Order: sequence, then structure tokens, then C-alpha cells
Amino acid sequence: MSQASILIQKINSNTETIGIIGLGYVGLPLAVGFAQAGVTVIGFDKSQEKVDKINSGTNYIQDIRDAILREVVENIKLIATSDFSRIKECDALLICVPTPLDKFRKPDMSYIESACVSIGQNMKPGTFISLESTTYPTTTEDLMLPILEKESGMKHDQDFWLAYSPERVDPGNVSFHTKNTPKVLGAITPDGLEIGLKIYSKAIDQLHLVSSPKVAEMVKILENTYRLVNISLINELALLSGKMGIDIWEVIEAAKTKPFGFQAFYPGPGIGGHCIPLDPFYLEHIAKKYDFDLSMIHAAGHINMRMPHYMAIKISTALNSIKKSVNGSKILFLGVAYKPNIDDARESPALELIHLILKKGGNVSYHDPYISSVETHGGSSLQSVELTPQALIDADCVVITTNHSVFNPEMIQKHAKLIVDLRNVIKDAGDHVYKL
Amino acid sequence: MSQASILIQKINSNTETIGIIGLGYVGLPLAVGFAQAGVTVIGFDKSQEKVDKINSGTNYIQDIRDAILREVVENIKLIATSDFSRIKECDALLICVPTPLDKFRKPDMSYIESACVSIGQNMKPGTFISLESTTYPTTTEDLMLPILEKESGMKHDQDFWLAYSPERVDPGNVSFHTKNTPKVLGAITPDGLEIGLKIYSKAIDQLHLVSSPKVAEMVKILENTYRLVNISLINELALLSGKMGIDIWEVIEAAKTKPFGFQAFYPGPGIGGHCIPLDPFYLEHIAKKYDFDLSMIHAAGHINMRMPHYMAIKISTALNSIKKSVNGSKILFLGVAYKPNIDDARESPALELIHLILKKGGNVSYHDPYISSVETHGGSSLQSVELTPQALIDADCVVITTNHSVFNPEMIQKHAKLIVDLRNVIKDAGDHVYKL
Repeated sequence: MSQASILIQKINSNTETIGIIGLGYVGLPLAVGFAQAGVTVIGFDKSQEKVDKINSGTNYIQDIRDAILREVVENIKLIATSDFSRIKECDALLICVPTPLDKFRKPDMSYIESACVSIGQNMKPGTFISLESTTYPTTTEDLMLPILEKESGMKHDQDFWLAYSPERVDPGNVSFHTKNTPKVLGAITPDGLEIGLKIYSKAIDQLHLVSSPKVAEMVKILENTYRLVNISLINELALLSGKMGIDIWEVIEAAKTKPFGFQAFYPGPGIGGHCIPLDPFYLEHIAKKYDFDLSMIHAAGHINMRMPHYMAIKISTALNSIKKSVNGSKILFLGVAYKPNIDDARESPALELIHLILKKGGNVSYHDPYISSVETHGGSSLQSVELTPQALIDADCVVITTNHSVFNPEMIQKHAKLIVDLRNVIKDAGDHVYKL
Repeated sequence: MSQASILIQKINSNTETIGIIGLGYVGLPLAVGFAQAGVTVIGFDKSQEKVDKINSGTNYIQDIRDAILREVVENIKLIATSDFSRIKECDALLICVPTPLDKFRKPDMSYIESACVSIGQNMKPGTFISLESTTYPTTTEDLMLPILEKESGMKHDQDFWLAYSPERVDPGNVSFHTKNTPKVLGAITPDGLEIGLKIYSKAIDQLHLVSSPKVAEMVKILENTYRLVNISLINELALLSGKMGIDIWEVIEAAKTKPFGFQAFYPGPGIGGHCIPLDPFYLEHIAKKYDFDLSMIHAAGHINMRMPHYMAIKISTALNSIKKSVNGSKILFLGVAYKPNIDDARESPALELIHLILKKGGNVSYHDPYISSVETHGGSSLQSVELTPQALIDADCVVITTNHSVFNPEMIQKHAKLIVDLRNVIKDAGDHVYKL
């Protein structure tokens, strides 16, 4: 009986064990999803703090309900560990590690490489492996496969199967979560595709199969590049509209009434989060190997990088109108999360903007109901202050950087002397409100 | 009683006459829409041929049903004329003239200027005027208003009212037509907005009012720029995918399964039609006045311009595989319309591609079921040939430039030796099919 048949039988009889590598905002919801479906899950993470939290039933991801995490941990369907030798207990390994860019905007593949080394050294024959992290097309076949074969001494499609299935997690999305978001899957061989489909189908409602890992890799890049390019486009049009005395927010609301062929994007101080500002540069990286220049992504990245600088100028312009300089002025930022109603400040443009204002000598404080402390891009540490009428009155300028739903526009407008509203929170803006 | 009150009374009692200037794919459906709603309409066009056709009940626009045109002409709700002095019979004038770019991609405002001169010299006091043509923001107030006041000697907001309401006609769209597509309207003054709303409401189900003509002008530009940028992005990704051995069409189908935050666009040999390739350059034109560089539109325009050249190279590569040169080869193009199932070849990338292949010495013929003859961008005239098995067999290379639904992929694949498929018409492509 082939390894493939044995594994398929195991899946059919619900006796397989799934290992999830990386227990962040992608891996933990996926682990919980499988555990809820009755599959035994081992979660792997190098952070002992995360492992301990999970094993004590303490949730740290906003999109998971605390009670559900507690339940699957108590039922022993999900256990977490930092001991990667337990990879040998798993029939399938789903890799959900970060793929950041380094300081020079080059892909940092060390997390994927390290996961492949751990898997290669520890897996048993008959293991299915799938990468979920965003990366450049060809990673699965050209980077991962050689490491796995070398470290394990095993042969692909005989002893193990490799696939790529990109995560589509959208933190804070109330309609779509891991289970009900269709998932793309591409494997190197037909056996790998069949096994992958059987495994994922237990936790995911709908799988969309493609012909290869590199097609699936390009899918993820396309989805995020689409967003980067469109946000950059609307940011550029917002800057021009500002010069022309046109309210870009009014323009977008009107364009949205077109019932076909239009999707609305909104301007902001820059692009944040873990995917959109980063993924397109993965494609730029591989494109160079093909002597190809991605002009759209290049232009979009350029605008995106400049946005915090333009926003710093806007703050300076606003203060100038009341004869103040940034240097020495009290500037209160509202919101440092990269999008509304979430507790994530990764790659948030607010952090870059705060850094720029600090560099100019601004006396900066911030309030975010979901993020109690941050480190700015310059390395300064800041603690969230309380949002009181007095805090607004005391500020020379209040800058709205994130449109958290809990913010009260009337209260802000009533007490703040000068507002720079980068998120269209203040609707009936008077002279003391500067809008993006 | 003010002129505004008199006009509103007239509209309320259904005794107003509406003049439509320009009876093309925008003006004629609008004229028919008003006439169907029981409003008396005079259609103006400089082309005596169009005028005669309409007055004899002969339709020349695909999106209008012949019977409906005949009906409104027979009921004398719609009459057409080339006599612009009859402008004085109209209470409202809706301008639907072309706004092309000249050879240097500069906006050609002569049609709008000429319409304004005719209106200014002929209109009676108490006339509402609305521009529907795409143009750069500020056109209505800064270009049209001075001409109208000068030519008429009348005063805006007292004797006449000026507004901008962009057309959203999508030729061939079976779900959305003039009446059920929401329409944006921005006027210079509140009276103008009120009158415009009352007039348009008779023929349009839903009006979306904005605060000024320039906001409405920017809405139209945003809608079309969004499409230009996204088509250019997918074209660029298609070119890279081709180099990487990734099927971009498979990638797009998979990305479409993402249920939020994505809208699919498809690659092609370039961008055609009357709006998308042109409108963004209107914005570039005005942006220069504000010392502003639109990098996204610039990059998008660049890709778009290069696409026919890349496609010419693809044809040459395909022929090279069978040891033939473009020079002297028989090349049959299928489809010259700029999008499927319509009879419009304006700005069609097929015309540019045919021109390039002719220049290289290709022996070119074309078939399009809806367009019997064309003039290429180089000025050559071609007649559509019949699409027979023999015509396919005789061609050294068959190039699919438009995906008309009536094309039969099996029949094309069966008889053609070599196919360059720029529209993903051939699904199970073998070695003799080159895809974009």
C-alpha cells in the first residue's frame, strides 16, 4: 500500500493529526478551525509565551472567540508546543510563519527556511506539507522542495507531498473568516492535490484547485497587488483633489453609485498591515530574475512610501495656519492601528507619521483604545493616553490616523482647536479641520 | 416670477422641451429615454445622415431597440435636426458631444466649445444646460460658463443654469442601460441643481447629487481611471506570468473566488473604446496646471501604449516557431471591436496591432461579424472576410483579438495551424496555441 493510500485512509477515518507551524493571526484561527471540526491539532510556535497562553486556554487573537479556544483546548483537540521534534507525530503540516521584508525591502525567507529545516529533520514518511504564507511565485518548488528533500533524505511524491495554499485572513472582517472564505490550493503532483483537498475540506467550506503551487502563489500576489495599486491610485487622486479644492471623499461616494465596473478604495496616511504593503515587493523580487520591470507596483510603492511625508506636511500646514510650528507643539494622534477596530499596529502608517513628527520636534501623544503601547519606526516607545475632553483641549493639533468606530466625531470636534482628519471621520468640517 | 420658477412650473406640467446635442451612443439612448417618458425631445447633430436616419425611424445604435426608436419618432416625441437655431425652442440642453484626444494626447475641447457657442447664440432666457461628456475637472465652470455668458449676453443663475452630469453608458451591457444606471449630477448653484434633478428624474431612475460640477467631473475620471489602472496592472502581470510559465487566466479565475476586496480584470492586446484609454489623460492635462505628476496614470498609460507592440512580438514569436517571418505570412485577425459583442472599433487595440503587422510586411485579413470594414491606425482600409474553415486553414497564423460570443473555439482550433489567442478563447490549448 502506497504512503498516499495510507494517509488518505487515515484522513477518511478521522485519525490524522495536523500540525500548524506558527500560531499568529493566520495559524491560530486555522488550528482552532481544524480542532472544532474534530481533528487533532498540534500547534507549533517558537514563542513559549504563546504556547503557554494557548495551553491555558488564554486567547490572544481578536478574531477567535475566547470560549471556542478554551473548549478545543479542554477537549485536548488542540495542544500547543515549542518542541519541533513533535513534527513526527503529524500527518500534515501547514506552515503559517511570517514572510516579512528586510530593511532593504527584500523578502526575508528565513522563517520559511527554518520551518522547512525543522520539518525535514523531524517528519515521518507519509507527510503532507502546505505553505500558507505569502511569498513570491516559485518559492514552494524552487526553495522549499530542495530543503525538505535534503534535510529528510526522503523523496517528494513518494514519502511526502508539497503544496501551496495562501491564507486569506482579513482581521476584523465580520462576514468572512477562515472557514467560510474559499481557499486556493495548488500542489506539485496529483496525489498531493488529492490529499490536500481531503485535509483542508475538514476545516474549509470551499477549496478552489489550481494546476500548480506557482499559480496559487501568483493568486495571492495578485489579490494584494490589486489592493496596493488601488489604494495608491486613490491616494494620488486625493492629493491632486486637495490641490484642486475637490473633496475626494465626496467623489468616492458618488462613484460608488455606479452599479458595475467600480470598487471603492479610500485614501489614508499610507498602507499598513502585514500583506498589502509587503506582498507586491515579493513579486518585484522575483521579477528581477526574469529581467522584468513592474512599473505599476513600482509607482504604487512610491506613492505609498511618500504618504506619511505628505501627511507630516499637512500637519505642519495646519499648525502654520495658527502661527505654530511642529517643533514644540502638542500633537495628539487618534488611532495607531493600521485599520479600524483591530489591535494591530504592524506596518501602520501612523507609526511612521508619529516618527516624522517626533523628528521635527513635535510633542507627541497618542490614544488608541485597542493598543496600549507602541514603538515608532524611529524606536521611541509611547503609551496610549486617555481620550478626555481635556486631552483634546490641551493639544495644539489633533490628528485622526485611524477611524475606529468608537471614536466620537462630535466630541472630538467640540474640544479640539485644530484637527487634521486623515480618515474622513469629521463630516461637517469647519475651518479648523484639515482633511486628506 | 423668476426664470427658475417658470421653468420648474413648465417641468411640473410636462410641457418642457429637451434638446440633446450629439446623437451618438450616449445622446441617442438619452433622447429616446426622455421621449419614452413623454417628454418632447429635439435631437441635434451636425451629421445630416444621422438626422435623416432618426427622422425616418432607422436605428443605428446597438443598445436601442429599433421598435422603440420608431415608436417615439412616429409619436413625434423625438425629432432630429441639424439646424442649431432650433436650440431656442428648448428649455433644457443636454450636451453629449465627443471629447477625443488629439494626436499628442491633449484633450480636444473643440466639440464642447462649438456646442457652447451654438447654445449661447441661440438659447432663450430660462434654459438649463448640462454637459454629459467626459472632461477634466473645472471644464464646466472655467471653460463653458464664460463662453455661454459671452455668446448669450445672459447671466448665469438668473437667465440660465449650468450643470455637469457624466454619462455612464456601457455599450453592450445587458443589465444596465441609461434609465436604470444611477446618474451623478453637480450644478454651480442650488437653483441649477433643483432644476437639473427635476429634468433628469423623468428619464433616469436614480440621481446622486454632488456639491459642484468639478466633483461630478472628478467622479467620471475616477471611474475610468480605476479601469485603466487595473487593466494595465493585469496586463503587466500577464506579461510577467508569460515569462514565468504561469497561466494568468487561471490565476484570475482563482483570485475571483475571494469573496471580498477583489474585482477581476482581464488582460488583452491593449485598451479600447471611447472612455478608458482617453479619460485619464484629461486628468493628466489639468494636473499639470497644478504642478502635479500623476505617476499611476502615467505608468498605466505607458503599459497600455506598449501592449500592441508586445502582441506584435508574440505573433512574430509564434510564426518563428514554425520557421516563418511576419513578412509574407498570411495572418487572419478575429475581431476588431474593442470589446465583445459590440460593433464599435474606436480606439480598438486590434487596429493598432493590425497596423504594426502590416508595417512588418504581414499579409493581413480580418473577420468581425459586427464590423464590415475598418481603417487601421496607419490608414489602410480593410474589409471583413468570411470566417470559413478554408480561411482558417489558409492562414499561417490566426490571431484572436476580440472574444465575440459567436466565435466557435472548437472550429477555430480544428482548422487553424497556429493560433495567437489574446482573449483566452481557446481553453484546452495545445502546442500550436500561443496565449497572452
